[in-house]
Amino acid sequence: MEFILNLSCPDKAGLVRTVSNWLFDKKCNIIDSDQFGDPESANFFMRVHFRGESEHNSDFQDNLIQTFSLIANEHRMSWGLWVANEKPEVMIMVSKQDHCLVDLLYRTKNEELPIKIALVVSNHRDVHSIVNAEGIDFLHISVDNKVKLEQELLSEIEKRNIDFVVLARYMQILGPALCRRLPGRIINIHHSFLPGFKGARPYHQAFDRGVKLIGATAHYVTTDLDEGPIIEQGVERVDHRMDTKTLAAVGRDIERMVLAKAVRYHAEHRILLNGQRTVVFH
Amino acid sequence: MEFILNLSCPDKAGLVRTVSNWLFDKKCNIIDSDQFGDPESANFFMRVHFRGESEHNSDFQDNLIQTFSLIANEHRMSWGLWVANEKPEVMIMVSKQDHCLVDLLYRTKNEELPIKIALVVSNHRDVHSIVNAEGIDFLHISVDNKVKLEQELLSEIEKRNIDFVVLARYMQILGPALCRRLPGRIINIHHSFLPGFKGARPYHQAFDRGVKLIGATAHYVTTDLDEGPIIEQGVERVDHRMDTKTLAAVGRDIERMVLAKAVRYHAEHRILLNGQRTVVFH
Amino acid sequence: MEFILNLSCPDKAGLVRTVSNWLFDKKCNIIDSDQFGDPESANFFMRVHFRGESEHNSDFQDNLIQTFSLIANEHRMSWGLWVANEKPEVMIMVSKQDHCLVDLLYRTKNEELPIKIALVVSNHRDVHSIVNAEGIDFLHISVDNKVKLEQELLSEIEKRNIDFVVLARYMQILGPALCRRLPGRIINIHHSFLPGFKGARPYHQAFDRGVKLIGATAHYVTTDLDEGPIIEQGVERVDHRMDTKTLAAVGRDIERMVLAKAVRYHAEHRILLNGQRTVVFH
Amino acid sequence: MEFILNLSCPDKAGLVRTVSNWLFDKKCNIIDSDQFGDPESANFFMRVHFRGESEHNSDFQDNLIQTFSLIANEHRMSWGLWVANEKPEVMIMVSKQDHCLVDLLYRTKNEELPIKIALVVSNHRDVHSIVNAEGIDFLHISVDNKVKLEQELLSEIEKRNIDFVVLARYMQILGPALCRRLPGRIINIHHSFLPGFKGARPYHQAFDRGVKLIGATAHYVTTDLDEGPIIEQGVERVDHRMDTKTLAAVGRDIERMVLAKAVRYHAEHRILLNGQRTVVFH
Repeated sequence: MEFILNLSCPDKAGLVRTVSNWLFDKKCNIIDSDQFGDPESANFFMRVHFRGESEHNSDFQDNLIQTFSLIANEHRMSWGLWVANEKPEVMIMVSKQDHCLVDLLYRTKNEELPIKIALVVSNHRDVHSIVNAEGIDFLHISVDNKVKLEQELLSEIEKRNIDFVVLARYMQILGPALCRRLPGRIINIHHSFLPGFKGARPYHQAFDRGVKLIGATAHYVTTDLDEGPIIEQGVERVDHRMDTKTLAAVGRDIERMVLAKAVRYHAEHRILLNGQRTVVFH
Repeated sequence: MEFILNLSCPDKAGLVRTVSNWLFDKKCNIIDSDQFGDPESANFFMRVHFRGESEHNSDFQDNLIQTFSLIANEHRMSWGLWVANEKPEVMIMVSKQDHCLVDLLYRTKNEELPIKIALVVSNHRDVHSIVNAEGIDFLHISVDNKVKLEQELLSEIEKRNIDFVVLARYMQILGPALCRRLPGRIINIHHSFLPGFKGARPYHQAFDRGVKLIGATAHYVTTDLDEGPIIEQGVERVDHRMDTKTLAAVGRDIERMVLAKAVRYHAEHRILLNGQRTVVFH
Repeated sequence: MEFILNLSCPDKAGLVRTVSNWLFDKKCNIIDSDQFGDPESANFFMRVHFRGESEHNSDFQDNLIQTFSLIANEHRMSWGLWVANEKPEVMIMVSKQDHCLVDLLYRTKNEELPIKIALVVSNHRDVHSIVNAEGIDFLHISVDNKVKLEQELLSEIEKRNIDFVVLARYMQILGPALCRRLPGRIINIHHSFLPGFKGARPYHQAFDRGVKLIGATAHYVTTDLDEGPIIEQGVERVDHRMDTKTLAAVGRDIERMVLAKAVRYHAEHRILLNGQRTVVFH
Repeated sequence: MEFILNLSCPDKAGLVRTVSNWLFDKKCNIIDSDQFGDPESANFFMRVHFRGESEHNSDFQDNLIQTFSLIANEHRMSWGLWVANEKPEVMIMVSKQDHCLVDLLYRTKNEELPIKIALVVSNHRDVHSIVNAEGIDFLHISVDNKVKLEQELLSEIEKRNIDFVVLARYMQILGPALCRRLPGRIINIHHSFLPGFKGARPYHQAFDRGVKLIGATAHYVTTDLDEGPIIEQGVERVDHRMDTKTLAAVGRDIERMVLAKAVRYHAEHRILLNGQRTVVFH
């Protein structure tokens, strides 16, 4: 039975030793481990993928959680422990453009992404049939009443035990209650190389500025639009022959790739928040 | 004897035909030709590298210029005609950091860059010996009196028939008279992926924002700081382990590469201005 | 009404003039034009996208073909002339892995690829339902009798007026009759950065050799396996943590991107053969 | 006082714990640590950068080495322990082309590369003055008598306590005695994307094959030419307009970048051999 532990805490001597001694006590063997001590924030970050001796056994898992809690409290750790092959429940939100959604559906089916897509939500009906063809629930929402919408979404998230939300080209602004309820658990794909071209119509902005590379940025959503911690970015070369329609077509490939990577990193618990920045253990 | 002609004008039918008939009349053979019709601005851009029959002959060149002037006037062209292997006279300006300067000196000596470095100007004396070792004139300037400095620079540019100026990590703002006197003839390297991180200390800004790629931008200098037409951009992947010093080291490689490309494109007359954007015929 | 003309012939003076005068005579206006004179092979290559005055009119098209034939004969040109928005009929061949097929289907539906997929052929039945869901014909083939298979494929190609064939991870070797019948009209995606790792199981070869980048290559199929003219290549960074399964997953993204680009270049008549190499006007 | 420890050994439970307990015993604090357990070879790899309490103190270093030896013997480790800011002594070998040499000299002076260049060796005199201008010893060698040359080089390596050798475009084959004497301590830059285009004139081979990307490969030298473990690779996009001379110019930039990275990784003890492959902890 395999587990993933990740943690962050104020840095000090002996942290790796503490964790590795605990693992040894529990007869667990490290498969993969990453650490990072940030000299600037003086915080320590760690992700360990390890194997316990037993087959699936919830008593064992409870014991790990209970014993590690003591360590975590002592060292003031933010931490999480997951069964490695348990797929998180994901809710995807999308508007009219479906390229990111289609890509996530394919990669999930093809087992490139270790997630379970529990629900797809859209303010349009265009993607309804694509989603249903995969046997996945679809929810059409109205964006007219923002307060009602937030309640509806929070209720679905609660009911379905959603682990994280992916905005796969969802062109509406999420309400602040939702953002605050799921900190570091909503991933957005912005179709520019942030911090360049924040806001609306970034490919038009890129065209007007005459840039020679365009990009996309996957980031966590905060109440501060386009300012959340960046998870992953990608770029492609463009030239003067390309109009905004062509820039958008080039951009779709970058968006697909960057969002899929960000979702995988999150699903594999590879991302830790470091203030407004992220630590990503590839 | 080889020439390069470049031109831009309002687009209409028959422009390629007009130019190719003129070349045929003059018994010139096209070696390389690029065109671009911008549907947005309705302008046409062309660069032709061609060979005339004669060996070096200034009468022939005069005749080309004279006869093409008539065509250019008729079609309201902005244009230039150059002898292909005549190296432009370049003035390089630099502050303390010498990596771009050293790179340009090496590529020039190694004949990767078809330019003649006529003068290196700096507000510091650090690079004096490097420049002199190459047998190139060095001018130390004071940035205390901006008006006097502008006059001094304009006088050098005049006296030495400088074709274009390269700001190779020159950390001072150029005066507006200079910018206006040499439109599209001053190239700057900005150490960020514009329009992200304008202004001072872009690697510190990039670190604080937690971006996953950093970049550099070569652009023409206008009176509007960091807003001139972009010539070339490059990026490299960075990660959470890198502090600002490391970002700057990664950035130096991008800056070197991007600036060297921009200088070569300009020296080979591959860049045409299209409003606030550029057409670059690679 | 818009057309695309591409041509190659022995290089000499006046070719651009000849073509542009012909276009002027026919009252056609150049939208986009590219030329290349290869000093090594002494051949000239050209692609012109132009607009005629009339709306759709087959007499006009016939006249263009007829008059250009005379020019082509005089200058010994290989050439083709197409109506710009007429989509070529494409046959896709695939084995078990469907990532390239799914990508091509999506991009075609999404109008990123200007093709009509007339038929999908496979030696497995796995992709049958995906193909039929798009309303596209599916043909299951047996690879036991190679002679019979070649006849079957040639017959389909004939019957359906197939313009070109795409091997989208088709893991069988095509028969020589087929290769010779469609020179420069069969595109294969090889899952390595050719000429490295020819033949079977390139990701295993790449793993064993410990390379730090893996790639994919789209090329025209010839009777000489993995040696046909290269159209497009892509790479991604990999590291020591990645096993062959992960390399294959990274590789699938490169394959999708590279194959889609190659198909688009071919469909837009951007590729000209230059001996064993290609000229690709991006 | 900071140290770097790297090690590889057969994988088993408790290795991280063993090392971290030893560090704790010695009152050392981990600054940076990387591990990798290779499921294929069943080997474990680790690199730890740590800080001891004392200022420079050779007794302390001796104690570390002595105590860790016992651990290393018990677990059959290959290992090394270095003072972190002690620069290795490097011998660079070069032929006529000096772009990699010039780049290494600049980066060393600019403190991007933590090495001390003890000696530059060449079978040509071209680079003599460049090397001497930096105050570095230069040795001109004759390649006529291979046996004598090997002895001469081995004697210099011995005399000067050379830690590793860099072949910075040295176009001669090293003798087998030298290769065997310095396993994993001679770095070569090959001007192709290995395993494509082994042997001589790779840019000519690349041109003939019509590839769309060219590359360079830094690898350890073994007696098996161009087959040693790969450290780092890079590529750049090329197109049909580029002749072999242009490919070589593009290639020089890749070579410079790739070799500089490989030298830095080696100097910082980031590379561990894993059979014919490398583990590189970036």
